[in-house]
Amino acid sequence: MKIRVYYEDTDIGGIVYHTNYIKYCERARSEIFFDRGISPSMNNSGFIVKDIKASFLATSSLGDLLDVTTQILTIRNSSLVLQQEVYRDGTKLFSMEILLVYLDITRKKPCRIPVIYRELFDSLD
Amino acid sequence: MKIRVYYEDTDIGGIVYHTNYIKYCERARSEIFFDRGISPSMNNSGFIVKDIKASFLATSSLGDLLDVTTQILTIRNSSLVLQQEVYRDGTKLFSMEILLVYLDITRKKPCRIPVIYRELFDSLD
Amino acid sequence: MKIRVYYEDTDIGGIVYHTNYIKYCERARSEIFFDRGISPSMNNSGFIVKDIKASFLATSSLGDLLDVTTQILTIRNSSLVLQQEVYRDGTKLFSMEILLVYLDITRKKPCRIPVIYRELFDSLD
Amino acid sequence: MKIRVYYEDTDIGGIVYHTNYIKYCERARSEIFFDRGISPSMNNSGFIVKDIKASFLATSSLGDLLDVTTQILTIRNSSLVLQQEVYRDGTKLFSMEILLVYLDITRKKPCRIPVIYRELFDSLD
Repeated sequence: MKIRVYYEDTDIGGIVYHTNYIKYCERARSEIFFDRGISPSMNNSGFIVKDIKASFLATSSLGDLLDVTTQILTIRNSSLVLQQEVYRDGTKLFSMEILLVYLDITRKKPCRIPVIYRELFDSLD
Repeated sequence: MKIRVYYEDTDIGGIVYHTNYIKYCERARSEIFFDRGISPSMNNSGFIVKDIKASFLATSSLGDLLDVTTQILTIRNSSLVLQQEVYRDGTKLFSMEILLVYLDITRKKPCRIPVIYRELFDSLD
Repeated sequence: MKIRVYYEDTDIGGIVYHTNYIKYCERARSEIFFDRGISPSMNNSGFIVKDIKASFLATSSLGDLLDVTTQILTIRNSSLVLQQEVYRDGTKLFSMEILLVYLDITRKKPCRIPVIYRELFDSLD
Repeated sequence: MKIRVYYEDTDIGGIVYHTNYIKYCERARSEIFFDRGISPSMNNSGFIVKDIKASFLATSSLGDLLDVTTQILTIRNSSLVLQQEVYRDGTKLFSMEILLVYLDITRKKPCRIPVIYRELFDSLD
């Protein structure tokens, strides 16, 4: 997935504001669903972010065109761990390991990831 | 209402990104409700932004402490027009006239502004 | 220019937060430059937003794919007025008239729009 | 430091968008400086975010008033590790360990944290 850096993404330091890389990764996760016409939530359940381990390796600037990659590290009944990275022309700028839990929003309890989503993740490899 | 300018508010130009003044005004409108413990929407109805006329008069920078003022220009059965302005130390930076319509979200039709909100607006003058 | 609506763009009302349409228009203005490998500022001068007149006509939701159109209404020595609109599947959601001034940042005075930018605008028609 | 949750902070799920907690922590770090009239950068050097380990423990909603706490875990010549947490009425919503490096922006190398900043951090305990 390609992401352009616009004015809104930069700060007074002239570089991309740090949390925006985490937003770019969320866009890439959502695009996996949208690109196939699938909603990322259903029946009042959906993925929530539980843990993030992120490293900021290099900076990017206004007008840069970035790549976001997404790889599944582990997948369980009701959770998955992804490795997401942001690149500019082959240089790694940002790396993040993220734990997502599939949650029944009403009961606020983890529940089984639906088959349609598991098949979607399997197709990514 | 006082608003501090943080890194997230600035852009590569070193000044506040233009749409953020419009966000500051929304914060000030919401704070009118929150400050009194009142929810700004009820029974699946609420205020939506219909029209904006905004002028950007001067800039502000990281660390500035801004004031947002809100004045009611006209109020009708199902809409109101506000004048909102942003200042730094008495210098006007931004001025906006905004038309809000009170909407029944389900029927997507304007409806009468509830008495509790009218009384709240009356108390502002 | 196509823009996807992500989680970050929505608010608790389930629709796109109003100021984001104005951000989408800024992305479209910047993309005119970036797409041709041209920087939108040079020699410590650049375009700043002076006035906005915006109308919010309909709403959009998570996953929507929006189109932003940009049309030049008038162009003068040191300013221009654009009409920008946001559509979803041919339905107009948002319309904005925006006055941009080309500013010498150091002297804080309007100055002549460089030829390279004028030629870029001419090529849009 | 107190932070109010506004419409801009929520998403379609009706709760605060996950990266906003990380932005709230940045506001709290900046406020340590602004509150004392000190700039958080000088002589083309400043703090940059290097690593983040964050856990999302509970959610918050429109109108909530949150507390952000900041505690220094370790401080070295050119870096420091902070523990930052977000609470609502005593309930912990978010916890983050963050490694900041003090960088000479021109040379892109870590450099010694200035005495004025060290004294500021010492005064926090």
